[in-house]
Amino acid sequence: MAHDLPTAAALGHLPKEEFAKTLGGIYENSIWVAEAAFEAGPFGNLTDIAKAMAAVVASASDEQQLALLNAHPDLAGKAAVAGALTVASTEEQAKAGLDSLTEAEMETFTRLNTEYRAKFGFPFIIAVRNATKRTILGAFEGRINNSIGVEKLQCLAQVDKIAWMRLLNVAKPAPTGFLTCHILDTARGCPAAGLRLTLSRLHDNRSELLGEWVTNSDGRLPGGPALKGETFQAGTYCWNFYAGDYFAANCLPISGQPFLDMIPLHFGIDNPEDHYHVPLLCSPWSFSTYRGS
Amino acid sequence: MAHDLPTAAALGHLPKEEFAKTLGGIYENSIWVAEAAFEAGPFGNLTDIAKAMAAVVASASDEQQLALLNAHPDLAGKAAVAGALTVASTEEQAKAGLDSLTEAEMETFTRLNTEYRAKFGFPFIIAVRNATKRTILGAFEGRINNSIGVEKLQCLAQVDKIAWMRLLNVAKPAPTGFLTCHILDTARGCPAAGLRLTLSRLHDNRSELLGEWVTNSDGRLPGGPALKGETFQAGTYCWNFYAGDYFAANCLPISGQPFLDMIPLHFGIDNPEDHYHVPLLCSPWSFSTYRGS
Amino acid sequence: MAHDLPTAAALGHLPKEEFAKTLGGIYENSIWVAEAAFEAGPFGNLTDIAKAMAAVVASASDEQQLALLNAHPDLAGKAAVAGALTVASTEEQAKAGLDSLTEAEMETFTRLNTEYRAKFGFPFIIAVRNATKRTILGAFEGRINNSIGVEKLQCLAQVDKIAWMRLLNVAKPAPTGFLTCHILDTARGCPAAGLRLTLSRLHDNRSELLGEWVTNSDGRLPGGPALKGETFQAGTYCWNFYAGDYFAANCLPISGQPFLDMIPLHFGIDNPEDHYHVPLLCSPWSFSTYRGS
Amino acid sequence: MAHDLPTAAALGHLPKEEFAKTLGGIYENSIWVAEAAFEAGPFGNLTDIAKAMAAVVASASDEQQLALLNAHPDLAGKAAVAGALTVASTEEQAKAGLDSLTEAEMETFTRLNTEYRAKFGFPFIIAVRNATKRTILGAFEGRINNSIGVEKLQCLAQVDKIAWMRLLNVAKPAPTGFLTCHILDTARGCPAAGLRLTLSRLHDNRSELLGEWVTNSDGRLPGGPALKGETFQAGTYCWNFYAGDYFAANCLPISGQPFLDMIPLHFGIDNPEDHYHVPLLCSPWSFSTYRGS
Repeated sequence: MAHDLPTAAALGHLPKEEFAKTLGGIYENSIWVAEAAFEAGPFGNLTDIAKAMAAVVASASDEQQLALLNAHPDLAGKAAVAGALTVASTEEQAKAGLDSLTEAEMETFTRLNTEYRAKFGFPFIIAVRNATKRTILGAFEGRINNSIGVEKLQCLAQVDKIAWMRLLNVAKPAPTGFLTCHILDTARGCPAAGLRLTLSRLHDNRSELLGEWVTNSDGRLPGGPALKGETFQAGTYCWNFYAGDYFAANCLPISGQPFLDMIPLHFGIDNPEDHYHVPLLCSPWSFSTYRGS
Repeated sequence: MAHDLPTAAALGHLPKEEFAKTLGGIYENSIWVAEAAFEAGPFGNLTDIAKAMAAVVASASDEQQLALLNAHPDLAGKAAVAGALTVASTEEQAKAGLDSLTEAEMETFTRLNTEYRAKFGFPFIIAVRNATKRTILGAFEGRINNSIGVEKLQCLAQVDKIAWMRLLNVAKPAPTGFLTCHILDTARGCPAAGLRLTLSRLHDNRSELLGEWVTNSDGRLPGGPALKGETFQAGTYCWNFYAGDYFAANCLPISGQPFLDMIPLHFGIDNPEDHYHVPLLCSPWSFSTYRGS
Repeated sequence: MAHDLPTAAALGHLPKEEFAKTLGGIYENSIWVAEAAFEAGPFGNLTDIAKAMAAVVASASDEQQLALLNAHPDLAGKAAVAGALTVASTEEQAKAGLDSLTEAEMETFTRLNTEYRAKFGFPFIIAVRNATKRTILGAFEGRINNSIGVEKLQCLAQVDKIAWMRLLNVAKPAPTGFLTCHILDTARGCPAAGLRLTLSRLHDNRSELLGEWVTNSDGRLPGGPALKGETFQAGTYCWNFYAGDYFAANCLPISGQPFLDMIPLHFGIDNPEDHYHVPLLCSPWSFSTYRGS
Repeated sequence: MAHDLPTAAALGHLPKEEFAKTLGGIYENSIWVAEAAFEAGPFGNLTDIAKAMAAVVASASDEQQLALLNAHPDLAGKAAVAGALTVASTEEQAKAGLDSLTEAEMETFTRLNTEYRAKFGFPFIIAVRNATKRTILGAFEGRINNSIGVEKLQCLAQVDKIAWMRLLNVAKPAPTGFLTCHILDTARGCPAAGLRLTLSRLHDNRSELLGEWVTNSDGRLPGGPALKGETFQAGTYCWNFYAGDYFAANCLPISGQPFLDMIPLHFGIDNPEDHYHVPLLCSPWSFSTYRGS
């Protein structure tokens, strides 16, 4: 991310006109959302700005909500082909590969766009920044069977997600977020002490090693969070837990070819202002994880 | 694996002398184990042969058990350095990297071997075929604190694991094993239908794609087991579950950067004559797995 | 349940007039739902009847949906006090204790009813048959903060749930449902064989023992489903798993006062035409369950 | 527990003769264990005393260990019938119902005792204070198939458990233990805030309510531990989680008869000097728990 982005605090304290100008495109072609959200400020972080804008949309009239949905382009539609999208939409559709569809894929999109609009009266909307063509087509085919009431809420939720990701592109989040881990040994009912793990960031099919730890006597990382503040960014991450070595060192019965050995765990960080606790509960024959707190 | 290995059935029906000759090295330098196990035959599969041999060891006298343990070489010890190991031991130690230790590592091994023998009266034994230097050193440092009673049982268990892996090297397992999967959606309490997944085999830092499926309405693989019979071999495997696409198609609330998207799951198959059921229970914010049946 | 209720099949094959007459009250004061659903028949079970009626509502116009919601009485409202509810509503509200509110509770309900109607334009609706006053008040206070779009969908979902429970009161379900169990030992990675368990039905603070089993070698109940056909009814059930005895018999390390000993597991059956698989995954220090298939 | 028991600290600082006299019966008829353990003191809590005594046993010679095992009476054996047990053993066997066996049960015990002694050369030992006849018979029949090496370790582990429970009978634990909870919503990936729960103590088929809480915004108990210090005692406890109300208030999709409603969770506290974290991870269709830290 560029280093000259304004901080969340700076953004949250802009005067109304600038606030609206900066955030007017967060909700596609709908500057009224930023204008109305301004009244709930000033804001100390991006999370609160996003919440205020989402609240404006949620409490808008049915007509306003439909207008907002209709301000969005078709995915891989005529506007995209003609180069008539907003800059943000163009980037997002390209990232998901929608600018390089085969002819057959283009036909499928065109057919689905048409059917969808005919049924619902607004375009199919999905946050595509982290999606693939497959994700999008699957969602298209799943959601087209919804009732209008359900699908309108789906689209509004997607619009909020798109807004959040655009917001992260225009300002630096407040440095409040952090990532923690905890490893429990469910075979013995105790913290898994002395278990080695690494953290990597995954992007564009590459893996960048960020750190390596050995858990302390409480099964946690010595030295506090694995990531925090500016190093804690939205993206996809991977813990690698060297569980097989732990089992061997602690005499837990395992087979010669261990059922669980190195356990990779992929997870995504959406809001870098939040605390993400991503623990591992494991025995030699089972494991689980969850977003904790 | 070589195609001219005898089948489990052929091995299990050998006359006594040949049986003992073929399996005499399964338990290091201790042909008496195979000789005594023969009496429980004939055997239809490798699992039963292994059980019979393990039972011989378990019911042997304390002196016999200690003799068996003492028939094993030190890890990275003098015999290894001098090239005086059995062929099987040589291969196993090399696979774990014990033939290329640094000087410092060699010193650590020598010190631990000496301390361990002084405390327990037998050499440190660990099944190393799927282990690394780190695994072995960690186990060494963990187990040296055990009581003699505990540690003797540890070594006997390791000897059984080594025997099993050697057995897989001398015969083809009975084609009774298979691998199944089942995916449950714990956010909605139903099978995860229409979820795409792949299976790969992992070896030597490479990944070989073995198959791709989309789950049926019961959350299972259409067409039965993912692997069975001769294609089902000991080794390390990986399911890749495309959970993010499933959540998007089914309108489960997820963040723009999904917390869980593609879920990789590594697992080991130790006994190719067994059924391995390796399911996934998942919501957008948690997942678990276990060896099922 | 009365034994002279019609079977699902008989109900599903009634001529239109009788079908509508019998099911006209399933959706409160809205016989048009049954009339329109009839066209999707004939039906072999209650699940399909319920789905057909729910589909009619889901695809109805906004006006029809609002009319349906407005056909419902306030909870603990004037109509209830005046004895002017439908028979079904009267019974349902009484079962949840709404006919015996304290004066303070009545005031709270009146205030919430008024605020809710003022915000949404329709009455607060919740399936109360298995709810308590506390459930209802908690839901009232939680849902009143929703947006109209979200809350309308909430009410429509509740109306479908009420309809299902009323349907179970007018016909016998098809005898296709059954209950199964499976117990996995996650400390050892194998089925929990030889584990004793019981099943009870819970109602009105009483517990009725329905059966007792010891798991077979695959960790399942010998003899097939625990309940099936007519004995499998909607309601609340409880497995009691005697896990402590299993751990002791299998030498799993547990403390003198075991962390887990007898594990009770309460679960509800909503649709007696379905398969409910309610397994237990447990080690001496952890357990989990889920609705499986 | 009697209020005039000495504190852990007082016990841990006794002079050697008194220490041995007070703790001489903790290991059945084997005052040498207490005498040798004394040297590792002084002790600040019962956990350290227990560890010191267990370490003495673990490092004792094979002969001493066998003598210790043989200092134990048969369960329901001649000594018990003749009233010749130590006071502690008499109480323990009575609590498990071994003083009121039917004639058939007595015959089974006699047969198993005889077979077991013939195979292993020492009596069957099991910590019976929290066991039933069924627990004991199941363990007897399971463990009699073990090898001698395994079974000797089993008995030594049981002896340590018996010692711990006897120790809790002669002194008040240090007030360092406490009980915490945490509830995570795995359907939404957040703490379960506003979820009501109660804690009860279970004894002799009665349930004593100890407290009631509503979780705070982090899904934890407001006000800190549920139990701590002197109120935190060994025994069996039960959380009741009112999950159904939480799901209803938070619009999580549940069936009319919820699959999960009130979730009871039984757990045992063995060491009142420890921290027990007993969390709940739940969605409307799954839950899990574990001993955490």
